[in-house]
Order: sequence, then C-alpha cells, then structure tokens
Amino acid sequence: MGDRDRSVTVGVDLGGTKVETALVDASGTIIVSSRRKTGVDRGAEGIVDDIAACIRDCLGANVTPGAVGIGVAGQVDPESGNVWYAPNLGWRDFPLRTRLQDTVGLPTFVVNDVQAATIGEWKHGAGRGISDVVTLFVGTGVGGGVISDGRLVRGCDGSAGELGHLKVAVEGRRCSCDRRGCLEAYAGGWAIARRAREAVEAAPDRAATLIELAGGDHGAITAGTVADAFHRGDPMAQDLVSEVARALGTGLASIANAFNPCLIILGGGVVEGIRELTALARREVEIRALDVAVKSLRVVPASLGQHAGTIGAAAWAHQELHTA
Amino acid sequence: MGDRDRSVTVGVDLGGTKVETALVDASGTIIVSSRRKTGVDRGAEGIVDDIAACIRDCLGANVTPGAVGIGVAGQVDPESGNVWYAPNLGWRDFPLRTRLQDTVGLPTFVVNDVQAATIGEWKHGAGRGISDVVTLFVGTGVGGGVISDGRLVRGCDGSAGELGHLKVAVEGRRCSCDRRGCLEAYAGGWAIARRAREAVEAAPDRAATLIELAGGDHGAITAGTVADAFHRGDPMAQDLVSEVARALGTGLASIANAFNPCLIILGGGVVEGIRELTALARREVEIRALDVAVKSLRVVPASLGQHAGTIGAAAWAHQELHTA
Repeated sequence: MGDRDRSVTVGVDLGGTKVETALVDASGTIIVSSRRKTGVDRGAEGIVDDIAACIRDCLGANVTPGAVGIGVAGQVDPESGNVWYAPNLGWRDFPLRTRLQDTVGLPTFVVNDVQAATIGEWKHGAGRGISDVVTLFVGTGVGGGVISDGRLVRGCDGSAGELGHLKVAVEGRRCSCDRRGCLEAYAGGWAIARRAREAVEAAPDRAATLIELAGGDHGAITAGTVADAFHRGDPMAQDLVSEVARALGTGLASIANAFNPCLIILGGGVVEGIRELTALARREVEIRALDVAVKSLRVVPASLGQHAGTIGAAAWAHQELHTA
Repeated sequence: MGDRDRSVTVGVDLGGTKVETALVDASGTIIVSSRRKTGVDRGAEGIVDDIAACIRDCLGANVTPGAVGIGVAGQVDPESGNVWYAPNLGWRDFPLRTRLQDTVGLPTFVVNDVQAATIGEWKHGAGRGISDVVTLFVGTGVGGGVISDGRLVRGCDGSAGELGHLKVAVEGRRCSCDRRGCLEAYAGGWAIARRAREAVEAAPDRAATLIELAGGDHGAITAGTVADAFHRGDPMAQDLVSEVARALGTGLASIANAFNPCLIILGGGVVEGIRELTALARREVEIRALDVAVKSLRVVPASLGQHAGTIGAAAWAHQELHTA
C-alpha cells in the first residue's frame, strides 16, 4: 500500500447478517463501499479475513487509509477492543481489535454498532456540530447512544446507551431481554406486531383493514402492516400508533430529564415506516418532561439511513487516530 | 487577605432554608464551616452579601482560598454561572457568578446543588477514584447526578441528572413536577407519606401501628412514620417499603441501562431513614437491568451526609481552577 492518508479511514459495520465496509473521507462521505453477507459459519477468524480482504481489494490501491473503525453488533470492551459477547455472530471474548489490526496492518478501533451509528449521526448526520445529542433507533429492537459535551458516553463496561431498555413500567410487558416494562416491549417492531395481533384478536370487528393487509392471516401482521393500515386511516392502527407514541414519549421524557440533550435523533425502521411518529413523540416528550429539560430540545429524524454505522465507525477511527 | 492558597477553596451550599459556607482543603476535609438561615427576604443581593461576609469573616484571615464554588438549589447556566430559576430562593435570571465574584474578589464557579453533592460524593465520598458514577438522593424530593468518564454530565442547559423524574409508568401517579409516572412520585418522601395515608384509609384494620406512631392522626403520617413502623416489623409498612424498593429498582435499572455506571450512590433522608432500602434496591436493579449493565455495578450508601454539597462545591471550584 502507498503512504497512509490520515484524513480517510475505513468504516466497517459488522452485523449478524451483513457486513458493510467503506472508505470514508473526513467529511463523512463514502468514497467507495462494499457489502456482503456475514460469513457467520466461517467463524470469527473467517469474518476477520473477509473484512481484511475487502479492505485490501475492494477499496483499491490508490489510497491507504489512516485507520480502521469497526462497529460490531455486540458488547465491546472499550479498553482492549475485545468483543465480550455478540450473540448474532456467535462470539464470546474475541480479540477483534488485535486480530483485525494484525491482519490489516492499520490502527483499528472497535465500538458497538449502535454507538457507531450514533457517532455517524452526530459527526456527519442530523447532529452535526451539536455537543449533547441522544439517538434512539427504533427498529425490530430499540437501541441508542449518548453524546455528552462532545464525547460518546460509554460507561463502566462500554454498554451505556441501552435506551431500548429504559423502563416505562414497574412490571409491564415482557421484553426481548426477558425483563419487564422496557421501552422496546412497547415500541420495538416485534412488540408492535405482537400488540397488533392481540388487538385484532380482542376486537376482530374493528380489524378488517389489518387482517386484509396481512393477507387474511393474523399471525402475519407485522409493524409494517400497522404502518400501512395507519396510513390508510384505519382507526385500530391509529390507536396502536398512539400507544407507541405514548411509550416513546415516556422513554424520551426520561432521556430528556436524565441527559438534557440539545437534540434527540430518531431513526430505525419503525420511525422510517411511520414518519408521523417523530412529531407525535416530540409532542409527547414536551408534555411529559420537565420544562428545563426540553427548553432547548429538538427531536428530529436521522439523516444517514442505513449507512450511519459505517460512516460512524470511520469517524470514530478518525477521531481516535487524531486524539491518540 | 494574604496570598492565595490554590489548594484550599470555599464551598457554599445555598438552599432555600440554609446556607453552609466552608473552607475545604484539597482532600475534601472541611477546615472550618459556618451555617446560617438563608435570608430569602433580603433578596438575591442580600444573600450574596451574607455569603461574602461569611467568606471574609467566618473563615478567618490566616488563609486565602483560591476560588469559591457554590451549589445552588436552582437551574444554573453552565456557561455564565447565571441562575435561571430558583423557586425556593425566589430568583429568576440572577447573575450569581458575576455578583459573587465581584463582591468576594475570588474566581467563582456555580453549579446546581445536587450536582455539587454528586461531585462531593464522587471526589471525596463513596465514589472516590471511580470514573463512572451516578448518585440518587432520595429525600422529600428525588434528585441525582451523573459522572461519566471522570466528568460531570451537565447537558445542553445544565439540567442533566433530573433522575427523580425518570419515568416508571406511562401514566401513573402525579408528581411534584405536575407530570405523571416519575420515580419521585413513588419514592420521594412526600409520595411515601401520601401512599401510606391512602393505604391506611383503604385498610384501617391493618393500620394500627402506623396510626399509633402518627399520634392517632392519619394526616400526620410521614415517610418517617413509615420508617419507624417498618423497623417495628409492621406488615403494612413492609408492603409500603417493598413498593418503594420496586419503584427505586425500576428507576435504577433505567439508570444502569442508560449510563452503565460502575457505582450508584444512594443518599438522602429516605435512604438514611430506611437503610435496608439500599440492599432492597440493589436486588431489584440486579433483577431488572440488563446483565451487561450490572456486570460491574455496585450500589452503596452515600458517605458525606449533609456536607456533600459544600464539599462538592469546593471540589468543583478546585477542579475548575486547576483545569481553567
């Protein structure tokens, strides 16, 4: 490879189903990117080899980046860059930073994938130039990240920002984490689908639109079905979306009161599928949070879409390279 | 005054009923302190004069501190040191930093009083040497503060850490902030008293101990009454304390999941009155939070008692003086 160009870095977004690798410049623009299926069956070393090959071959020889940033769907030790646990990858205690660094020959920085997306939206997306930002990504699951005074809040073991597991009830609905009352159990895509199926079973006479959109099969109702019915003006779907907005507003009120961000960025499939949710949640948080906590608060949609993680991982590497 | 000694600072804890002023050394030890009633009726300028007189006279002439730190029961603008709003002092938009600095002739740093207590416990109390600490002070009201990676989280407008207003219900009980479902509406001293009176009215046959301890007057039941009855083994009080522990554990689970602290410090009159609450809340948070969020978490009682705010304000001044 040629001389390193410290202004460009590689961003990698490593999930359980796909891995995206991109060369990103200092302004957060993707110069070239490549996406492939994650070879989970090839094991951790195989995945590292895939990523390394992609960095070498896919990105070309005309530029050598200064560092690699990788966001991984798992629990990351901030100090060592080891991945403690990544259930979707089947990893436990894998020294990702060391292995990738040795294989690629570039300084490597590891962060959790949702934290990477948070950095992406903060550095180059909807949060540019703002010191105190919280993201909430509402997809099948719900995750988030916190920027406080221009720094990512990582916490004692690197797991800060598990905002989908903010509680909105002392007991309440059971969550994917097997605890009760989490925000995700009300606003996550899987939870919306579950709640919609319950509503259809409880009041089939009101459920014609939802059942029709699901092809006549209650069990096939998803959060997407609810979004479609909502956009047709279906009253049951409107009730369901109001319920989601109240739970979301409650979680956001906790976020506003605890972190006092200038900006909350909402992203993820559920929010993209029901764009009205951003305004609904904004109204709910303004009602539910302390006046002082929402004095300067804005609630806006994410702007980088599915590339937030890749761009953020690259930005993280850029930042760490230039502050190390 | 003589030469300034930059290792000692003045800490001031300014509340609506009392103001404590102390000379504090770099190890957090109070060398001399003085406490007086807050002269709310003398107005903001009168209070500043009182504090200035105390710094000049009460602290003696043999040492000149390097700076003044003041924790004030109100909303503080982190940049200017202005107090936006302090209802218990009757202040709006008062330039506390400038006025006190001009009067005393020493660099002055202003922070919210609960944030000051948080800094006190972190720098010189139960949180010494730990990078990620959250405090929760459960008194009549409930407040807290957050230290992330060795820095106080202040937020966009300085109001971060309003942890008493973390939500534990989407609707739920009405809080002192006039919203619903806040932790304080379940765990604050006033809320415990209200809930106890409701319980007594709903089941007077079980309420003999509580009624007796309150001198026969339901309306005289306080959180202290509940604590006394709890320590006598009264079943109704035990149920009430279990309810408080569940709400507290729910709030702490949100805190653990959001901030991933190494340490949560519990202080305030309710926790001091019912010391068993710390262990009960610890058990609840371990059940309710994510495994990764509590992996390294300890939950411990505060150690500085009522001087946390004064010591913390002095420590804040010390830190700001030496990093400015």
